[in-house]
Amino acid sequence: MSIAEEIKNKLNSNAKKVDSFIAEVFFSRKPDELYEASSYILESGGKRLRPYLTIKTCELFGGTAEKAIPFASAMEILHNFTLIHDDVMDHDELRRGNPTVHKKYGIPLAILAGDLLYTKVYQIFVNHIPEELSYEDVIKIIQRITDSTILLCEGQALDILYPESMDINEEDYLLMVGGKTGALFSASAETGAIIGGARDEERLAISKFAWDAGIAFQIVDDILGITSTEEKIGKPVGSDILEGKKTLIIIHALENANQEQKEIILKVLGKEDSTKEDLKTAIRAIHETGSINYANDLAKLYMESSLEILAPFPDSEAKKDLKNLVKYFVERKY
Amino acid sequence: MSIAEEIKNKLNSNAKKVDSFIAEVFFSRKPDELYEASSYILESGGKRLRPYLTIKTCELFGGTAEKAIPFASAMEILHNFTLIHDDVMDHDELRRGNPTVHKKYGIPLAILAGDLLYTKVYQIFVNHIPEELSYEDVIKIIQRITDSTILLCEGQALDILYPESMDINEEDYLLMVGGKTGALFSASAETGAIIGGARDEERLAISKFAWDAGIAFQIVDDILGITSTEEKIGKPVGSDILEGKKTLIIIHALENANQEQKEIILKVLGKEDSTKEDLKTAIRAIHETGSINYANDLAKLYMESSLEILAPFPDSEAKKDLKNLVKYFVERKY
Repeated sequence: MSIAEEIKNKLNSNAKKVDSFIAEVFFSRKPDELYEASSYILESGGKRLRPYLTIKTCELFGGTAEKAIPFASAMEILHNFTLIHDDVMDHDELRRGNPTVHKKYGIPLAILAGDLLYTKVYQIFVNHIPEELSYEDVIKIIQRITDSTILLCEGQALDILYPESMDINEEDYLLMVGGKTGALFSASAETGAIIGGARDEERLAISKFAWDAGIAFQIVDDILGITSTEEKIGKPVGSDILEGKKTLIIIHALENANQEQKEIILKVLGKEDSTKEDLKTAIRAIHETGSINYANDLAKLYMESSLEILAPFPDSEAKKDLKNLVKYFVERKY
Repeated sequence: MSIAEEIKNKLNSNAKKVDSFIAEVFFSRKPDELYEASSYILESGGKRLRPYLTIKTCELFGGTAEKAIPFASAMEILHNFTLIHDDVMDHDELRRGNPTVHKKYGIPLAILAGDLLYTKVYQIFVNHIPEELSYEDVIKIIQRITDSTILLCEGQALDILYPESMDINEEDYLLMVGGKTGALFSASAETGAIIGGARDEERLAISKFAWDAGIAFQIVDDILGITSTEEKIGKPVGSDILEGKKTLIIIHALENANQEQKEIILKVLGKEDSTKEDLKTAIRAIHETGSINYANDLAKLYMESSLEILAPFPDSEAKKDLKNLVKYFVERKY
């Protein structure tokens, strides 16, 4: 079995446990429309990466998966809250191959569904405290979650603001994806570490491990958004370009393009009404600048940094799973 | 000094303490636009009723105002988060006489500013724990806050969904305002009670006291939205009617109007492009149905219920302040 197949099996098996916990706590109340809009995104799939991180880091420190599942599930709910709001902000109409929440239920209910999911996150933290976890540790976890969600809001704000500016460099990009992806990966891993009983310095190492893994994941996500197919990524190829997103690839391409390539890219960048032909030509130009390879190399560097942080921990099944997860982040094709 | 003047002085004096705590924790980070959008609404005034409830209920059980201020401030931040998102959902352009957040900063930053403020609420709960408050009590407070915010989301969902339906009665209205206003008033009061050291049955009584006071407050708010002036309420008179909101007054008016009055009201209900003349005529018709008086009487009933719950508590300055607050809710002119 390849690493990709093995990790997918493990992700699926953990996803089932997480989804069954979510189904258990997320019983429907009135009004139906609000609860339908809130459940809709949770039921539309997703890899459940963040809960996997929580479960595996908990196991890394000797805790059981069962102990981690409620808070792991909360991390997935938190992630889905941000997806709903992000899709409203980005005017995205497709997510995981389905209409986005606001496309299906309207913007007001989508905003509210996000707020409801986010509230559920904290409700789980105080109503489903794992046995033997102290109140002090719960407080510490909520500290990490709020700190990370603030970084997340800041990262998303940058993502909204960057398209207005031509002056965005690689450092700006890394700040933005750190907030948008690194922060929640970190918080998910730290939550597992705290439940598993990690000491503070171990927890901080795990935080950095997951942060770098998150950056690698996000860079590859941006690559797949250009090189994969709509069927595989569940949204139109090149939609980031048309929305004017400053991905690493776009930043690098604009810095390294010749005049002709630059004009071809700028013709569609941030122009949602571009023709498919022009978008294809721009994607070809981006390939020619070597930006896809550059992004791939940087993703690998973050992967290696992440694995290096993990190396000193004693060998275990959980450590192997975490290593494979990070490798899969970079090697995956969707 | 009249009750209104006395309560306004006390509200102002507490508001200053709350605002200075908020200014202290809400230092600006990057990006500026996000923090400006988030601070903007907090700096645009407001009566700070919810923190007042938290402070006074804390005092009622022997706690000091100082001990209550961090969490009291969190309640105000929570309230402002809901205002930002509600204004987006309702397409409202004016709040407290100023452009709403989304009107000034755009919908994406408004949604994010709300998310950021809401995150700050929980961050305060875990980073500014009052001395001598146990972690267990902090968990209990977060339980109350999450339960209430879920009711709040449900109430707001009803508020969005009701305009689509002609079949809304007084009971439906009370369910909606219970969520939209009662829940957060209750949570604010319970938070103060827990900090002050109330026993569970005392806390539950205080919860009901604040819930009923909240309903009285909201009914009067709906009345003032029709009978006051734009200058006093900070938004156009009759905007609820044009948005098709099912307030108690509208529900009662439609049930008690004759055919001619009904037609006059329905001509503008939910029609945002109505003429000022038609709106004035409709407001006159609403007055004629006796619905304003009816709403006033019901607000008084809720006030009395609220005061009755407070009656058995030993006399104190805090108790007097809470009584005056509820009386002011009903007697206020804006």
